[in-house]
Amino acid sequence: MVEQTAYAQLEAIFRKASILGDTLSVLHWDMSTMMPDGGADSRSDQLALLKSMAHELVTQPPMADLLDRAESDAADPWEQANLKEMRRDWVHASALPADLVEAMAKAESACEMVWRQARPKADFAMVLPTLKQMLALVREAGQAKAEKLGVSVYDALLDQYEPDGRSADIDAVFADLEAFLPDFLARALDAQAQRPTPRLPAGPFPADKQRALGLEFMTALGFDFAHGRMDTSFHPFCGGTPDDVRITTRYDEGDFTSAMMGVLHETGHALYERGLPNGRWRHQPVARARGMQMHESQSLLMEMQACRSPEFMAWAAPRMQAAFGGQGAEWDGGNLHRQGILVEPGFIRVDADEVTYPAHVIIRYRLEKALIEGTMALEDLPEAWNDGYRRLLGITPPNDRLGCLQDIHWYGGSWGYFPTYTLGAMTAAQLFDAAKTADPTILPALSQGDFRPLLAWLRTNVHSKGCSLSTNDLLVQATGRPLDSGVFKAHLERRYLG
Amino acid sequence: MVEQTAYAQLEAIFRKASILGDTLSVLHWDMSTMMPDGGADSRSDQLALLKSMAHELVTQPPMADLLDRAESDAADPWEQANLKEMRRDWVHASALPADLVEAMAKAESACEMVWRQARPKADFAMVLPTLKQMLALVREAGQAKAEKLGVSVYDALLDQYEPDGRSADIDAVFADLEAFLPDFLARALDAQAQRPTPRLPAGPFPADKQRALGLEFMTALGFDFAHGRMDTSFHPFCGGTPDDVRITTRYDEGDFTSAMMGVLHETGHALYERGLPNGRWRHQPVARARGMQMHESQSLLMEMQACRSPEFMAWAAPRMQAAFGGQGAEWDGGNLHRQGILVEPGFIRVDADEVTYPAHVIIRYRLEKALIEGTMALEDLPEAWNDGYRRLLGITPPNDRLGCLQDIHWYGGSWGYFPTYTLGAMTAAQLFDAAKTADPTILPALSQGDFRPLLAWLRTNVHSKGCSLSTNDLLVQATGRPLDSGVFKAHLERRYLG
Repeated sequence: MVEQTAYAQLEAIFRKASILGDTLSVLHWDMSTMMPDGGADSRSDQLALLKSMAHELVTQPPMADLLDRAESDAADPWEQANLKEMRRDWVHASALPADLVEAMAKAESACEMVWRQARPKADFAMVLPTLKQMLALVREAGQAKAEKLGVSVYDALLDQYEPDGRSADIDAVFADLEAFLPDFLARALDAQAQRPTPRLPAGPFPADKQRALGLEFMTALGFDFAHGRMDTSFHPFCGGTPDDVRITTRYDEGDFTSAMMGVLHETGHALYERGLPNGRWRHQPVARARGMQMHESQSLLMEMQACRSPEFMAWAAPRMQAAFGGQGAEWDGGNLHRQGILVEPGFIRVDADEVTYPAHVIIRYRLEKALIEGTMALEDLPEAWNDGYRRLLGITPPNDRLGCLQDIHWYGGSWGYFPTYTLGAMTAAQLFDAAKTADPTILPALSQGDFRPLLAWLRTNVHSKGCSLSTNDLLVQATGRPLDSGVFKAHLERRYLG
Repeated sequence: MVEQTAYAQLEAIFRKASILGDTLSVLHWDMSTMMPDGGADSRSDQLALLKSMAHELVTQPPMADLLDRAESDAADPWEQANLKEMRRDWVHASALPADLVEAMAKAESACEMVWRQARPKADFAMVLPTLKQMLALVREAGQAKAEKLGVSVYDALLDQYEPDGRSADIDAVFADLEAFLPDFLARALDAQAQRPTPRLPAGPFPADKQRALGLEFMTALGFDFAHGRMDTSFHPFCGGTPDDVRITTRYDEGDFTSAMMGVLHETGHALYERGLPNGRWRHQPVARARGMQMHESQSLLMEMQACRSPEFMAWAAPRMQAAFGGQGAEWDGGNLHRQGILVEPGFIRVDADEVTYPAHVIIRYRLEKALIEGTMALEDLPEAWNDGYRRLLGITPPNDRLGCLQDIHWYGGSWGYFPTYTLGAMTAAQLFDAAKTADPTILPALSQGDFRPLLAWLRTNVHSKGCSLSTNDLLVQATGRPLDSGVFKAHLERRYLG
């Protein structure tokens, strides 16, 4: 019997961890879409057990030695990149004792279930005690990881979603945007006032017809229903596994564009997952998405760059009209395009336009940083949230459902995640720009509802890379330069001031 | 730190195994109801990994010693019964090497997926190669367990579904039924010819209305939708966990009674699962259902005993009529009752009446025994199947979709399961008889659609016992005697010759 190399042993261990991770994804999808409320306790037990088993796998005692020995085994750049990701996983996992991992898993499930009750009731007080327990555990975990990584507590949490992401860089980018946006918003609103006011087609738009339209557009974008599905949940998300990618949406019968844009957004995430390296690399760390900045770039590239273009809208408008049997000038492609790029400060992040979206993110980023750093108490969150909206967007949420209860992230345990949305928006602009330059057929094809040229470019330049490159290297290889806020700003100026 | 007793250590181990088992249930439910075909390989990896992890837990080296030492720890009859079930699990699990467990899990998933394709095409040849691979593994597992249990290979497989079930007992019961049934069937058909011919209401019956009717009846029976759901699958089943019980059905738009009776049947299973011991005993082996004979008794008690009674039909008929907006005399309770107890030899087991049902089971039992014992080749299954139907029911299946491809069991890896259906039918008759005697309000309540008295008796006498008693002891405590085929025969005579 041939002795396995250290590297081969690691591949076997991480393969198991990946399959456990896939199982957790399915259980989480089910919890958000199918599970009756009475199943919550039992689901929480399941999630906690599987997470602790995955944690046990990745932190087993021989791991430190295996990782060291594998350095000389890893034969090519992909194996080396794979090994680097394994080490990253191990550092994150071994920072946490097993009982903390289990306690966090339970706290996340418990808090998310209470949030589901509290949100429709706009009752922040209802979820505050469980949220407090969770935040305490998150801070404990962040502290433990910060020591291992040699970074701040907030950066240690951020690193889970955006490897090597650092708040110092984010502070700089967000300061730049904050300097640009208020003035830009005013100019965009002025320019908008000069154009014909878009008219939203009148509903009601039955959920089943919205769903059918969503499925039609998903097919156009390249979603493969033999390897995925679309369902309904409180908070839209993309879950499942690369072989079985599951997106969700929610329906507002008064405005079909909310679910439609949500579906296009989640389809962008889904196409990334489906396009990740398969075969030899499936179930290896290197075959995962690069990080949440890149993931969000894929959803926003579809939703904001491609599907809010006049080219796509010209193709999509008659299909929307047909889906609802609509009549009248409001179904005109130009009107629907203006509707699609309407700028209007609002309360809900997922419904926000791309000009005001960064404000939603900046507010959340500053709040979660303060909560993690302990400079703010959770009791003060609703008031601080509303202050942020007053200051940055000039509006005050009338209740916490439209305020700090709207997003699942904090209640589901995702702290340090929010900034990746705006980093993703900037990355999306830069990738789309590079794609259009590299293949001039991309934009004309969109006007025929043909996403194949765009998807081919993304498959080659982003999806198939997995996380074999850093976010920065991937961006440089694909676009010729590091993240450049100038491309995003130029995009905004072209679209909103033109 | 206090040293845990051996018994307490076992409880902790089996709790984990139970949670893994619940996870497997959810994954299996999803695979049958929600998963796109392209997710099959990845699901198969997930099921195989979790099964092997559960197997590893229960067969860990200290187990033999823990079980021995726990004998002096187990304090009361429930702990003793729990320990007995732990040992049973361990004997079954430790008989199999880990690689066989993993190979079987993969073969089951693979074969079930091929069967899903082959069944609508009536293409047995398509599934034969994967079925062969599975049968070889099942025989290997049966052989290994037979040695540990000191029983035949078939009995070792049967023991997985019906603990302490033995084919010698089944042979005697089935011989008794085979002697009784042919003559009885002829007399029942004669008696039926004397009664007005029932007329099936004419469809079509839209699936969504059938579903609504099913939900209404499930509610009447006592199904709690805060702890369960109802969906659609190829083959109806009851899955999920005791906290989140999930039944499925399938809809024939030409005949609503098939789905309706299926729903009542699966609801019987679901009520048993939901009524199992909770709290202290949840996730312990003793809190599981006693075995498949008792499980099937609970579904058949609802479907065959309670819901085909004239009392229930009188209440249900106007509700069926209202559900479909039906008009005419065929919606009369008497007609629908005669329809519900119509005896007619047919090809499909799940649609069979209770007089011919035992023949479906006896055919399958003899075939699977021959296949397991190696006295018959799988290639000969379709012909042998059709021979059995010709001989016992006088009909020949026109194709394998209506023949040996109809049931999921063999293709999903369940060998040795079929006889529990007919043992369950006999147990159902005996339990319902005892319940009606113990509480004379049960039958009148059914005529009001009120299942509470019946459910209360079942909760007390069956569900809450878990598997703290053997099948025989449970039956003796609940009905005053062991399994008595006379009660089943008397029931048939009363219903079909009366």
